Amino acid sequence: MAVGETRFPAMPAIDGLRLGTAMAGIKTPCRRDLVVVEIPAGARVAGSFTRNAFCAAPVTLAKANLAACRAKGEGPRYLVINTGNANAGTGEVGLRDARATCAELARLAGVNEDGVLPFSTGVIGEPLPMERLLGGLPVALASLGADGEAWHQAGEGILTTDTRPKGASVTLALGERTVTINGISKGSGMIKPNMATMLAFVATDAAIEQELLDSLLRETVDRSFNCITVDGDTSTNDACMLIATGRGATVHGDEEIAVFRNGLQRIMTELAQAIVRDGEGATKFVTLQIEEAASREEALDVAFTVAHSPLVKTALYASDANWGRILAAVGRAPLADFDVSRVAIDLGDVRLVEHGGRATGYTEEDGSRVMGQEEITIRIALGRGEEVATVWTTDLSHDYVSINADYRS
Amino acid sequence: MAVGETRFPAMPAIDGLRLGTAMAGIKTPCRRDLVVVEIPAGARVAGSFTRNAFCAAPVTLAKANLAACRAKGEGPRYLVINTGNANAGTGEVGLRDARATCAELARLAGVNEDGVLPFSTGVIGEPLPMERLLGGLPVALASLGADGEAWHQAGEGILTTDTRPKGASVTLALGERTVTINGISKGSGMIKPNMATMLAFVATDAAIEQELLDSLLRETVDRSFNCITVDGDTSTNDACMLIATGRGATVHGDEEIAVFRNGLQRIMTELAQAIVRDGEGATKFVTLQIEEAASREEALDVAFTVAHSPLVKTALYASDANWGRILAAVGRAPLADFDVSRVAIDLGDVRLVEHGGRATGYTEEDGSRVMGQEEITIRIALGRGEEVATVWTTDLSHDYVSINADYRS
Repeated sequence: MAVGETRFPAMPAIDGLRLGTAMAGIKTPCRRDLVVVEIPAGARVAGSFTRNAFCAAPVTLAKANLAACRAKGEGPRYLVINTGNANAGTGEVGLRDARATCAELARLAGVNEDGVLPFSTGVIGEPLPMERLLGGLPVALASLGADGEAWHQAGEGILTTDTRPKGASVTLALGERTVTINGISKGSGMIKPNMATMLAFVATDAAIEQELLDSLLRETVDRSFNCITVDGDTSTNDACMLIATGRGATVHGDEEIAVFRNGLQRIMTELAQAIVRDGEGATKFVTLQIEEAASREEALDVAFTVAHSPLVKTALYASDANWGRILAAVGRAPLADFDVSRVAIDLGDVRLVEHGGRATGYTEEDGSRVMGQEEITIRIALGRGEEVATVWTTDLSHDYVSINADYRS
Repeated sequence: MAVGETRFPAMPAIDGLRLGTAMAGIKTPCRRDLVVVEIPAGARVAGSFTRNAFCAAPVTLAKANLAACRAKGEGPRYLVINTGNANAGTGEVGLRDARATCAELARLAGVNEDGVLPFSTGVIGEPLPMERLLGGLPVALASLGADGEAWHQAGEGILTTDTRPKGASVTLALGERTVTINGISKGSGMIKPNMATMLAFVATDAAIEQELLDSLLRETVDRSFNCITVDGDTSTNDACMLIATGRGATVHGDEEIAVFRNGLQRIMTELAQAIVRDGEGATKFVTLQIEEAASREEALDVAFTVAHSPLVKTALYASDANWGRILAAVGRAPLADFDVSRVAIDLGDVRLVEHGGRATGYTEEDGSRVMGQEEITIRIALGRGEEVATVWTTDLSHDYVSINADYRS
């Protein structure tokens, strides 16, 4: 299942960046499961990684290598990404395998070993099939390309239970010149990113100072990948990488930074929403808009409490305007001195709750009309302040249970 | 679905206490849905209520009336409990209806209005059908009895999506004399009590000082109803009441208090576990034993993070020893400075995880053997200290989704 139709966009090349793929047979034969991204010398790279304490071996190594590059004043030169196996919960063996992967790619490409950052996604706890993985590296290198087809194939090469590849692209005017931002993402289950989603790779030809790139990544991830949830399960392998090749226009001055930030936020949000729309078993795309909160933190607390409620999620699946379940979930959010008589809840354009109970004039027909739609917005005004937050989520369907009871992920 | 077989126990009378029921047709015709509990003058009563900010009208009123009785140095004289309608999210109308219910019962029984405590469970957000409810009160009063049959019928009269009544009974020797503790509980979905479960009523003939009774309730609820979860959704109507009629032996002295506390804890735990075994769609009864924690709080954090993980719950449903999902859930628990290389995870008698990865010698066959069982213990040693916690939960099955997508609860 997945919500709505999506088309993988036509992507222009990002000057200096190339992508290659291979069918290495890591878990399933005859599907793209290995991706290599070539980054030009002089590019800037920022990364955002899972906060799960059991972070996977490739995450540990990618963070260490990125730091090593920074210390030398260089950027990393390659990303290597495999699907079908997360190389997580694999202890020392996992770290050794991740290092061997980077070493082999570095040897083939003639770069330093710490200039390669590894990423893995798929089943947890199995050792990487190293022979097949290493065998795929020359194939992926031989297929390196910069065009839209290379981006599309890379988008396919990182999927797990996803039903479709996810991409977004925008070209922005910066004064007389333009810059382009392309991105791909993957993720469908074990989605409640805390730092970044499962995997997302975003690249631009813009020239951006490292510090600015870091803060742009942090800000935009915080309002995109960190605001989605399918099942509340934060993955061991989450990572979002932002690459600026620097071959195009330089981003400088407040106005240009604002234009770039907006464009980047749009790409991040599109990629994050695409993961929710393709959430495991999803039949609904739900926007939770929290308003009048005392802080952004409490707004997010309320949003995630509602988004993770199995009773709210099954009511959404059933298209049942069961506002009592939304109210009960809001009521158990961890807010101090919470006066529920000030709370108002709207379902689309229908007022559900006010003054601590069902809104005057509310009818089941009105509620059912909105609940029957594929895309639903629930607006919750807390009456406590001015802060807001938006979180995107899915329903909980029979297919979610089937996918996760049948598939060893 | 429900895990295992249970038999409603034969319950001896609690001297001074009587229970009556009626079929008032509140939601469904021809089922017991109204219960009246008569408490003798001079009894002591302690109560524990939901912390959901949207607490239901009867909870608000029960707390207020209990406080009013205390202020007068009296105990409440009646409990009135209906199922089929939670009288939650009903605003001012709900409070008026709860008051009218207490007033009518007080009039019929010749007691003060604030001597009646109301409890409701069922669908949220619908007004109580007052005519039918009030009409049932004389019937319930006429059927008041003290024997095991009265307890059994009361156990039936408080159920919602439960598939069976839940009762527990123990008789304890206190020196030369004996005291009895009886209890009934209900609950199946919207179960993650924060203070108490959906509804539980426990009574003893023992004579116990008010202060001791309060602390005994707090302690035993904390290690029973506050340690179970089906779906993480804390109800708006949770309440657990403990009545000591005082007609039997007095509990005094450290040794007798210890005997009584142990007996009470056993009843509370049995009643709480019965709710999990009858959890919506449950096919597994799962015990999460957290050890070597730095504090009981962090042990509970880890336990509930694992217990609420949809991926762990669907793996349990599938009898799939997918230890990677357990590890990922432990890793996202909110613990500071968490060194995962010290964590050990056992599934029954099988070591799954140690040193941050799969345990040496672990085989899928061993894991599958334990996962196939109906009752499963997952032991997680954190390597951080001496504190422990135990939490009981269920799996997440197709039936859970069906029950909650089809039933307006």
